[in-house]
Amino acid sequence: MSEHQDILHALQSVLEERKNSDPDESYVAALYAGGADKILKKIGEEAAEVILAGKSDDDEHLVYEIADLWFHSLVLLASRDLSAQPVLAELARRFGVSGLEEKATRSKQN
Amino acid sequence: MSEHQDILHALQSVLEERKNSDPDESYVAALYAGGADKILKKIGEEAAEVILAGKSDDDEHLVYEIADLWFHSLVLLASRDLSAQPVLAELARRFGVSGLEEKATRSKQN
Amino acid sequence: MSEHQDILHALQSVLEERKNSDPDESYVAALYAGGADKILKKIGEEAAEVILAGKSDDDEHLVYEIADLWFHSLVLLASRDLSAQPVLAELARRFGVSGLEEKATRSKQN
Amino acid sequence: MSEHQDILHALQSVLEERKNSDPDESYVAALYAGGADKILKKIGEEAAEVILAGKSDDDEHLVYEIADLWFHSLVLLASRDLSAQPVLAELARRFGVSGLEEKATRSKQN
Repeated sequence: MSEHQDILHALQSVLEERKNSDPDESYVAALYAGGADKILKKIGEEAAEVILAGKSDDDEHLVYEIADLWFHSLVLLASRDLSAQPVLAELARRFGVSGLEEKATRSKQN
Repeated sequence: MSEHQDILHALQSVLEERKNSDPDESYVAALYAGGADKILKKIGEEAAEVILAGKSDDDEHLVYEIADLWFHSLVLLASRDLSAQPVLAELARRFGVSGLEEKATRSKQN
Repeated sequence: MSEHQDILHALQSVLEERKNSDPDESYVAALYAGGADKILKKIGEEAAEVILAGKSDDDEHLVYEIADLWFHSLVLLASRDLSAQPVLAELARRFGVSGLEEKATRSKQN
Repeated sequence: MSEHQDILHALQSVLEERKNSDPDESYVAALYAGGADKILKKIGEEAAEVILAGKSDDDEHLVYEIADLWFHSLVLLASRDLSAQPVLAELARRFGVSGLEEKATRSKQN
């Protein structure tokens, strides 16, 4: 369970570190250096790839393409000094779910 | 910290529950009923909205649109009985980060 | 032959006329009133529909969706007081084809 | 006037010729060889570029990106042995415009 959350945190750390990397040696640093348009163009490309993967039966391929789409979303957020946290908070708000409440519920069940 | 992970888990539960909901009463159930094309079309729409939001300085708006994009990705995954877990695992694999390792590192630091 | 060219001209006239129409009564006028973002969002949506149609064998459906994509491109151009003319000129430039030269060639052949 | 129509015809001829070209030497032949997914992915990319160009004031850039989008639409059509003709016919049908009628009208005016 905690693995997921930790992955997002670990990724965030990597994305922050890359702000000091050489664009010639780091793909993420090259995206930052390319500016918003470069990152946004990638989001358009990856969305098209998700749509195409969504038309095939290959689950692994779909997961791979969604990972690409989410990854570039995280780069976009990081480029503006944002993280996945407010995105997940917005999702929680919409669906009336709360990590803390859910956790409490599960604790009672166990 | 655990809040994030719990939000994804709680959302997953909601998306599973909606498989038994009336498409006339639940937006998610209507997406499932519409089939892959309906969900994939939404992913294209939301990607366009992220690109447009990415051109403005409004962080809140950007977060909102990325939440929309991720949400429809989760619906797509759920429609194929998949969750966010393999997506995060793929991201972890690429960046050589592991929730468990990262967690262990942080535990030592604290 | 001349039909195609005349269609683009006729469409251009319609798009110009709609600049004076009531957004409540004309779809095109509503797009203009919505501004660039509204038109650009539609281009993203229609591109997703073309991708989905491109995965089916239904030629008629594909033609319909490409017509939608081109139509919204023409609305975007018209909203900036541009027409299809420079777009076609750019295509001609790239491929080393020229309407006039091509016409001359064909005239010789007939 | 006839230039536009002739450009589309000339382009169509080029796209047909490329079906016999070496994918290593012709970009269009490489697209055909890549199959529908390769062409459809490009349509997604070019749509994202149109959206980004639509947010700038550079008309020339916008025209360039729309030319890219239309070009890949024409490649998609050609890959299925279709042309721009039914697309323009669909647009004419929707807007109640007809090249022939429009031409007749203009002839009377001149």
